[in-house]
Amino acid sequence: MSSLLGIFLFLYLFLLLSSISAKNREYKWKVEYMHWCPDGVDGVVISINGQFPGPTIRAIVGDTIFVHLTNNLPTEGLVIHWHGISQIGTPWADGAALISQCPINPGETFLYKFKVDKAGTYFYHGHYGMQRSAGLYGSLIVEDEKEAFHYDEEFNLLLSDWWNKSSHDQQIDLSSKPFRWIGEPQSLLMNGRGQFNCSLAAQFSKFPIHQCKLRGDEQYAPQIFNVHPNKTYRLRVASTTALASLNLAIEGHKMMVVEADGNYIQPFFVENMDIYSGESYSILFKTDQDPSNNYWISISVRGREPKTPQGLTILNYIPNFASKIPNSPPPLAPLWNDYNYSKSFSNKIFGLMGLSPKPPTRQNRRILLLNTQNRIEGYTRWSINNISLVFPTTPYLGSIKHGINNAFDTKSPPNTFSKNYNIMKPPPNPNSTYGNRVYMLKFNTTIDIILQNANALGENVSEIHPWHLHGHNFWVLGYGDGKFDHKKDVEKFNLKNPPLRNTVVIFPYGWTAIRFVANNPGVWAFHCHIEPHLHLGMGVVFAEGVHLVKNVPNEALNCGLTRKMFVKDKH
Amino acid sequence: MSSLLGIFLFLYLFLLLSSISAKNREYKWKVEYMHWCPDGVDGVVISINGQFPGPTIRAIVGDTIFVHLTNNLPTEGLVIHWHGISQIGTPWADGAALISQCPINPGETFLYKFKVDKAGTYFYHGHYGMQRSAGLYGSLIVEDEKEAFHYDEEFNLLLSDWWNKSSHDQQIDLSSKPFRWIGEPQSLLMNGRGQFNCSLAAQFSKFPIHQCKLRGDEQYAPQIFNVHPNKTYRLRVASTTALASLNLAIEGHKMMVVEADGNYIQPFFVENMDIYSGESYSILFKTDQDPSNNYWISISVRGREPKTPQGLTILNYIPNFASKIPNSPPPLAPLWNDYNYSKSFSNKIFGLMGLSPKPPTRQNRRILLLNTQNRIEGYTRWSINNISLVFPTTPYLGSIKHGINNAFDTKSPPNTFSKNYNIMKPPPNPNSTYGNRVYMLKFNTTIDIILQNANALGENVSEIHPWHLHGHNFWVLGYGDGKFDHKKDVEKFNLKNPPLRNTVVIFPYGWTAIRFVANNPGVWAFHCHIEPHLHLGMGVVFAEGVHLVKNVPNEALNCGLTRKMFVKDKH
Repeated sequence: MSSLLGIFLFLYLFLLLSSISAKNREYKWKVEYMHWCPDGVDGVVISINGQFPGPTIRAIVGDTIFVHLTNNLPTEGLVIHWHGISQIGTPWADGAALISQCPINPGETFLYKFKVDKAGTYFYHGHYGMQRSAGLYGSLIVEDEKEAFHYDEEFNLLLSDWWNKSSHDQQIDLSSKPFRWIGEPQSLLMNGRGQFNCSLAAQFSKFPIHQCKLRGDEQYAPQIFNVHPNKTYRLRVASTTALASLNLAIEGHKMMVVEADGNYIQPFFVENMDIYSGESYSILFKTDQDPSNNYWISISVRGREPKTPQGLTILNYIPNFASKIPNSPPPLAPLWNDYNYSKSFSNKIFGLMGLSPKPPTRQNRRILLLNTQNRIEGYTRWSINNISLVFPTTPYLGSIKHGINNAFDTKSPPNTFSKNYNIMKPPPNPNSTYGNRVYMLKFNTTIDIILQNANALGENVSEIHPWHLHGHNFWVLGYGDGKFDHKKDVEKFNLKNPPLRNTVVIFPYGWTAIRFVANNPGVWAFHCHIEPHLHLGMGVVFAEGVHLVKNVPNEALNCGLTRKMFVKDKH
Repeated sequence: MSSLLGIFLFLYLFLLLSSISAKNREYKWKVEYMHWCPDGVDGVVISINGQFPGPTIRAIVGDTIFVHLTNNLPTEGLVIHWHGISQIGTPWADGAALISQCPINPGETFLYKFKVDKAGTYFYHGHYGMQRSAGLYGSLIVEDEKEAFHYDEEFNLLLSDWWNKSSHDQQIDLSSKPFRWIGEPQSLLMNGRGQFNCSLAAQFSKFPIHQCKLRGDEQYAPQIFNVHPNKTYRLRVASTTALASLNLAIEGHKMMVVEADGNYIQPFFVENMDIYSGESYSILFKTDQDPSNNYWISISVRGREPKTPQGLTILNYIPNFASKIPNSPPPLAPLWNDYNYSKSFSNKIFGLMGLSPKPPTRQNRRILLLNTQNRIEGYTRWSINNISLVFPTTPYLGSIKHGINNAFDTKSPPNTFSKNYNIMKPPPNPNSTYGNRVYMLKFNTTIDIILQNANALGENVSEIHPWHLHGHNFWVLGYGDGKFDHKKDVEKFNLKNPPLRNTVVIFPYGWTAIRFVANNPGVWAFHCHIEPHLHLGMGVVFAEGVHLVKNVPNEALNCGLTRKMFVKDKH
């Protein structure tokens, strides 16, 4: 398997030559609700062209994607966010409702047009209300003409979690007073497929559960991964879970992790790997096990007491029957609260020297973001520096570009939090406030963000939050336990080979430091990728170089105050 | 009780003098989802200012109503229709989504401003998607300074039906292939209150059910009607059911029906009365029964095999305890399919000579509308003259006023249906087509509409449909069985004292003839008031004198092609 690494470096040159003739790729998508059975229980999903998950987009670096998105939901607005795509020059196509555009009205069609300028494993998903939880997601794969590493074939694995309760009802529950928690997911899905009332591995289960009896054409039948012995496979894996942090394993197969969020990383081997909502990876594995057996591919819940069965499918060594159950029980996941295990995985990820750009050595501005759980007027919320994000009715991109200053609170949001704040205890005063302020970043400056975790409302509770930044990749400079120390911790920043990412986790009671250059004109969300947390206010908004933004289609801004601005009275 | 009738006529003069100083009445409403328990089962309603049903508006004839409506639903548009209000001069305030206005976006506020120019019992409700089914409704009472009849006190009774399944899920079910019917309502509500898991009348029930044990402050505790003996009460009753046709009775009390849909009718006495969705009535009754007892007020399902328990509350003779259960079982409703009984009630309704204007004696145009159940591409739909209504994305009021001719299909919809159509059989070719054409009515002409019922998709099934016309009252010229006959049936039209209404029923396999004058500039929906039927296409659209419409606020037309028209490029 070490030869893989050789090939990897060897193909470096091809990367530099990959300015092949770019293509326009055009899609017509209709979005609507559809009855579907993702885990064997009748439910409803948001579908695209009758598919769940939505169609996979496959493109080549440099291509331009055109998606004509028609909203066929009966009364709801709609947007789609292209997770991991930088949207350089097209910030209005980022698909973050009320940040980069107005929701698309029912019956209307909006054209997303953007360039995919970097190879990698990406995905797309709804970014309005909790439509992602309703199943509005799919894969977006950007290939290099010549990939930097060798493999024989590739698979795509999009991970998600599923509730029987509609996301519409979940949203109402979360916004209720008193708060109603949505609970743990009913099932975990691999490419939109899971099993709730039965198990593929019933014979190994400690709890009584039926063995799934599947023909294979059921909506919830697992997608089998067919492999030939002694080949190298690339598994592209991305997580768009609403809540669950996951651990992925391929029974008996070592995995070499080579890509994170569309960025090359220094390859490393693991037996299993954590993946948080918003993240994507590529791993290479060799089919070097006994070819007379099949093997489990499993995902298990991390970071929350697992009440959701493992998600399972089969790595099927051809010519075995796909129905041949592996000899052993599915891989045991690490203990859900073994955070040292998780940290150890995160700390193995480094930028690939030579292929991964290095960060600027100095920052121009450091912003500390304290993550707390709070109450506002009896509602349960999440807050950043004591402000719980609510979106304005006018997209920031429009109001900032056009200088409309009553569209949101134009005061600067706090750059930090109180030095005396005890992150190990519940907030002494749990009340925070709603807000929609924007961090105005000076164009082309280097920004450090310190994400500081803290105790939630309950004693001895601090949760994992995977933070996702729109419009950028950032360097992960380091993780730490406890409260961030401006002196000691900064000295330990990894400026040599930090990985580039678009999503990074903060561990319970810990901090995470990232660095990025504010060089992409637009307005960009930075938020916890857990859908209920974002819905409850866990995010901030960055704006940079908005005066440089050109060619925003009117359709993107036809709501709120930008709409009023456009209107000339015709009566 | 006959003295009531005397007083009624005696006060005629006061009516003519009721041009008292008009008032502006201003309301600020916030609409949001809310957990609520309308029938004892935890559910979700659309609330206004935290209330379900929404607040009652009480106004005096001539007042102007201002409702600042803020949409706090998370992702859905919103409108409110003011059912029964003619909206003369304010057709944009009719609150029919995509007919008179664009849906109000989440977070935005729209100002409804309209005059209430006629006393009567009205109500308001959502008119987008199936938001009415979700509980978005309330009462709108317009008083005369001097009422035309005497009573000591009045009560208000808004009737509705309730499902445990969210209207959101219902809507998806109805739009599914294969079709999923929503089933009969779980319970009937009186002023938003019903009982599902218990009965107020358990002791009389043939089926085992618990007696409700209520303190009275529960969300689903019935609203008790407290009366003094030997007084005259006015009961204002309106039905905003999603599906159910109802029969109302007050045990042991004769009811004198005096008002229908805000129009005076020739008073008549009944023991119980049918009321269809979209209708309203005022009845007078005397508390002339044994004052040591309390009495049932009941509503029961008509026209569909009743699978829903009676809705019940108590007429409480003071000083009895409200908890005193009546001595007798609740009133027995007429057999659900005793349509002769229903027809007999409808045929008792006449305009009140002198107070109710007479119809023009001749029509200028007669339109026949065949009501059929159909299939389109495997979906189950309702159609009118073989077209199943789908709304355009630009409100008709805007596209017609501004001469935008690509906003909808501008071909004339069919004025009639095939003479050979056999209404007694399922459609020989069940396929119909989607459409959004408009009946363009010449301004100030007199229009006759013949609503022709027919057999649905299943053999021997023909359903009741209560049709509601926006922007107008119409005269009900007659009802008949079978297929409308242009010669014989026209001769039997009642041109002497037909009642004015805004809603009228067609009976199974029958026809109903109405007449109205197209004298209200605007675009007006005419549709079956059964929410799932309208959702499945059972309606048509009339336009008249649209060139005369003035002062449409831009906010009403800020979507679709009218929005594009307003936009001047600012980039």
